[in-house]
Amino acid sequence: MNGAEALVAAAIERGIEVVFANPGTTEMPMVLALDAVPGLKGILTLHENVATGAADGYGRMRGKPAMCLLHLGPGLANGLTNLHNARRAGTPILNVVGEHATWHVGADPLLASDLEGAARWASQHVARAACAGSIGRDLGTAIAAALSRGGQIATLIVPHDIQIAAAGKLEAGRSEAPNPRKPVAHETVGNAAKALKGGGRALLLGAEGLSEAGLRLAGRIAAATGADLICDTFFARLERGGDLPRVKKIPYFPDQALELTRRYERVVIAGTRRPVAFFGYPGMPSHMTTEEQTVPLSSANEDTLGALAALADELGAMRDVDVQQGALPPMPKGALNALSVSAVIARLQPERAIVMDEALTVGIPYFELSQNAARFTHLMLTGGAIGQGPGAATGAAVACPGRRVINWQSDGCGAYSVQALWTQARENLDVVTVIGSNRSYNILNVELMRAAVTAPGPQTRAMASLGDPHLDWAKIGEGFGVPSVTVDTAAALARELELALAAKGPRLIEAVMS
Amino acid sequence: MNGAEALVAAAIERGIEVVFANPGTTEMPMVLALDAVPGLKGILTLHENVATGAADGYGRMRGKPAMCLLHLGPGLANGLTNLHNARRAGTPILNVVGEHATWHVGADPLLASDLEGAARWASQHVARAACAGSIGRDLGTAIAAALSRGGQIATLIVPHDIQIAAAGKLEAGRSEAPNPRKPVAHETVGNAAKALKGGGRALLLGAEGLSEAGLRLAGRIAAATGADLICDTFFARLERGGDLPRVKKIPYFPDQALELTRRYERVVIAGTRRPVAFFGYPGMPSHMTTEEQTVPLSSANEDTLGALAALADELGAMRDVDVQQGALPPMPKGALNALSVSAVIARLQPERAIVMDEALTVGIPYFELSQNAARFTHLMLTGGAIGQGPGAATGAAVACPGRRVINWQSDGCGAYSVQALWTQARENLDVVTVIGSNRSYNILNVELMRAAVTAPGPQTRAMASLGDPHLDWAKIGEGFGVPSVTVDTAAALARELELALAAKGPRLIEAVMS
Repeated sequence: MNGAEALVAAAIERGIEVVFANPGTTEMPMVLALDAVPGLKGILTLHENVATGAADGYGRMRGKPAMCLLHLGPGLANGLTNLHNARRAGTPILNVVGEHATWHVGADPLLASDLEGAARWASQHVARAACAGSIGRDLGTAIAAALSRGGQIATLIVPHDIQIAAAGKLEAGRSEAPNPRKPVAHETVGNAAKALKGGGRALLLGAEGLSEAGLRLAGRIAAATGADLICDTFFARLERGGDLPRVKKIPYFPDQALELTRRYERVVIAGTRRPVAFFGYPGMPSHMTTEEQTVPLSSANEDTLGALAALADELGAMRDVDVQQGALPPMPKGALNALSVSAVIARLQPERAIVMDEALTVGIPYFELSQNAARFTHLMLTGGAIGQGPGAATGAAVACPGRRVINWQSDGCGAYSVQALWTQARENLDVVTVIGSNRSYNILNVELMRAAVTAPGPQTRAMASLGDPHLDWAKIGEGFGVPSVTVDTAAALARELELALAAKGPRLIEAVMS
Repeated sequence: MNGAEALVAAAIERGIEVVFANPGTTEMPMVLALDAVPGLKGILTLHENVATGAADGYGRMRGKPAMCLLHLGPGLANGLTNLHNARRAGTPILNVVGEHATWHVGADPLLASDLEGAARWASQHVARAACAGSIGRDLGTAIAAALSRGGQIATLIVPHDIQIAAAGKLEAGRSEAPNPRKPVAHETVGNAAKALKGGGRALLLGAEGLSEAGLRLAGRIAAATGADLICDTFFARLERGGDLPRVKKIPYFPDQALELTRRYERVVIAGTRRPVAFFGYPGMPSHMTTEEQTVPLSSANEDTLGALAALADELGAMRDVDVQQGALPPMPKGALNALSVSAVIARLQPERAIVMDEALTVGIPYFELSQNAARFTHLMLTGGAIGQGPGAATGAAVACPGRRVINWQSDGCGAYSVQALWTQARENLDVVTVIGSNRSYNILNVELMRAAVTAPGPQTRAMASLGDPHLDWAKIGEGFGVPSVTVDTAAALARELELALAAKGPRLIEAVMS
C-alpha cells in the first residue's frame, strides 16, 4: 500500500463516501488509489469552485464532509470562494491537495505557490503530510477538524513523493474524535428565559436551531412566551413548510432589518451571532440589534439543540406552537417577474424538495411565498461570494438521491459557475435549475437607486447590465449537456417546471423576466 | 472630488487606460467615478479570473498595466490563478480591490476575509489606502511597483468610506518612478562571451530576450558563435516568424528536455532562469541543465536587452544570423488531430496575428509548424494554472485593436473560463477561438502511459475524460453571444477559419478531433 492508497483507505474507514475532484499530475497516485481501494466515489468537475461548492451542498445535507481533491495551490485557489461560503455556513469539508514532490519544490516549478497561505484563507485546519506511514493519522486529524465545532474547513497537503512512497500496514483505526459543540451554561439559559418573558421578544435562530428538532423546540418556546421566531438574511440550511413553525427572515438592507428588529425589546440569539449588516452604509449601524436588545444563548459553535431544550424546560414550554396553515400563492399569469417566478416555484416544488436559493434580487419574494409549501429544505448563499448555487445544488443532489433539488438561481450569480451543469449531466443528478434572468447585476441598480443616483452615466450602467448581448441560458445549458428551455410567461414556466420535476436527471429553465 | 474620483484621476494621469472589472457594492463609488472622471474605459467580465487573465494579456502586449477592479476578498480570490500566471509571466498588473468601510470591518460582515492574505498569494506589492487625501499617492506607488523589475502584480485595497470621503485637491503629479531592471555586470557579460566560444553552445532566452530587439541581438550572437537559440517550454511572449531568428523550445517532459539540453556543453541564460521541470518525476532531476552547463547572463528582472547588446559587442557580433525561410506546412486533409489543426492555424494566421496558445497536448505540433508563418506574436500559459487563454486573448485584443487574435485553446482548459466569450462579444473584439476538442484531460492519459499504467480502472478513466457528455462548444459559444461552429475535417476547419478571420468581431470554432 502506498501513501495515496493509505489515504483513500483511511478516508473510507472514517466514513467519507464522495470526492469532488479536479485532479492533475500531482494527484494521479490518489486517483489511481480510488480504483485500487474501492469505496470512495470520484465525481469530476470542470472547475474547482464547482467541487468546493458541491462539497458545501453535500456537507450541509449530510452533516459530514465530502472530500475535495484539488491540484496544487492554483487548484485550491480556484476553489477558495465556495470554501469561504462553506466556512460561513459551518459546513464540514475535507480538502486534499496534491503538492510537488518535496525534493522538487525548492526548484520553484511554475505551479509552485504559497499553498499553506492559500489554504489558510478559508480553512480552520491546515496540515502537510510529512511521510506515507502517518498519512492515515493526518487524514483522521483533518476529518476530526472538519467535524469539530459544528463544521469546519480542513485542508491536508500531500506531496507527490509521499503519495507514492510505501505506507506500510494501515494503523489500527483509532480516529481522533472531533471537538463537539460546546455546551451552554445554565446561567446563560436562565438569562435567556428571563429575557423572553414579557411582550416584544424574538428568538433569532441559526445553525441547528433551524433544523427540524431545533424548530420544534423553538416552536414550543414561542408558544409559551409569544416570542417571534426569526432567522438571518442568509442561512446555511432551514427546514421549512408542512407543520414546522414559521420563521421570519431579517431583511437584507439595514433600514429594513432595523424596522423588524426595532419591534423587539429583546432578541435572544441561538445558533448564530448578533446580526451584522451585509455592507456598511453611512449613517447606519454595523449591527442590526443594539447591545441592550441582544441576549446571547448560543453561537453556531455551541450546542444550540441542548440550549433550546434547556430553555424550553426552564420555561415549562411543553406545547407545540400553532402553525397557521395558509394557502399556497395563487398561480400567476402573464409575463415573468420576481414575484411570479417565485410563486410558480413555491406552488410546484414537491414534498422533500431541496431548494438551493441563490436568486438574490430576482428571488426576494420567494421566502414569503414558500411559507406554506410542503416540507422542504431551504439552502442559501451564506458568504456573499456569488456563484455558489450551481455547485451546491450539485452536491446536495449527490448527498440525497431520491430528493428533488431545485436550484433557484439568478443569472449574474449563475454565470460564475456554469460548469456545474456538466457534472449534473454526467452524474444524471435530479437538479432543476431555474434561472431568473433579469439580464443585469440588479443589486447594483438597487444600490444606485437607494443612493439616489438617478441618472447613472454610461460606464456605470454598463457595469450593472448583463444585456448586450444577453446570455442564452438554454444554449449554455445544452452546451454543458443539460436539456434546457427558455420561457417568458408564468404558464410556460409552470408547464416546463412540472415536466422537469417529473423527469429523471437535470434540466434547466431560463425564466426571462420583463 | 472624492477618494474614488481621485483614484481614477490618478490612474488616468499615470497612463492607465483600461479597467477590467467585476465590481460590487463596495466598488460602486469607483464605478461612478469612471463616469465622473472620463478617460478610463471599464470593461465588464462575468468572472474575476477573466478580468485578471485579460489584464495579463493586455499587459504582455502593452508593457503597462491594466487595472482590475475586484469585489472584496472573494472577488480577488476568484481572480488569483490568472494573477499567478501573470506573476510567472512578469506582467505588470494593477489590482484595485474595494473593501468594507473601515468602521464596519470589525463587525466581520459575511464577505469579510483576510484580504491582504489573498493579495499576497499572487502580488509582489500589497497596500491599503488609509485616507482619501493620499489615495493618488498610494495608486502611484502601486503603479510604480507594477512597472518595476520588468513587471509585477500590485494590489491596492480601498475601503468604501475612503472612496466616498473628500479627497481635497489632487496633488501635483510627481509619480514615484518604477525600479528599472537591474543592469548586468561587465564580468557576467565577459563570462557569457567566454562560455559561448567553441561548439555545442546554446543561448536560452526569456523576457525581453524574446522581443524583436532581443531576438535580433541574439541572432547576431548566434551568427558569430554558432550557438543555438532556445527558449523555455512556457514563455510569456515570443515574437516569431518572418525574418526573425528561429528559436527552439525546450520540451515539456524532462527526459525530452534533457535530450535537447544534453547536446550543449554550455547554456547561457538571458532573461530567464535555469530551466526547471514542470513536475518532479522520480529518477529525474529538478533542473534541466547541470550546474556546470549553466552560465547565467541575466534573469527576467535584469536588463536583458542591455546584456545581449553588451554580449554582442564583446563577441564582435555584427552580422545578422541567416534565417532559413522554410515553407508553411502543407494543407492537411481528412479528419482532425493535433497535427492537422495546428497546421491549418499556422497556414492561415494573418501577418501580425497574436496567437494565445493554451492548446497544451492538442497543440504540441503548433510551435514547430508555425516556424515559417508571417510575423506574429506567440503568447503561452506561463504558470500552469489552466484557464488562461480565453481571458488573455480578450485582453490582448483590447490592447491591440487592428491585430487579429487567435485563441488556440484546448477544451479542458477552455472550460475553466468560458465566461470570457461574453466579454469578447460585448466589446466586439477580434478574437477567433479555436477549440481543439479531444474531449479529455489528455495530459493525464499521457502521464498514465508514461507511468506504464496500461489498464487504468474506471474511476481513473473517468477523471481524465471530458466525454459523457461531451461539451457542445458551438452551443456554449452562442450562449455567450459569440457566433460559433463545429467542424471535424481539415477542409471545413480551413474554410471556417478563413471566414472567421475575415469577419469583424469574435468567432468560435470547435475542432472536433478523432
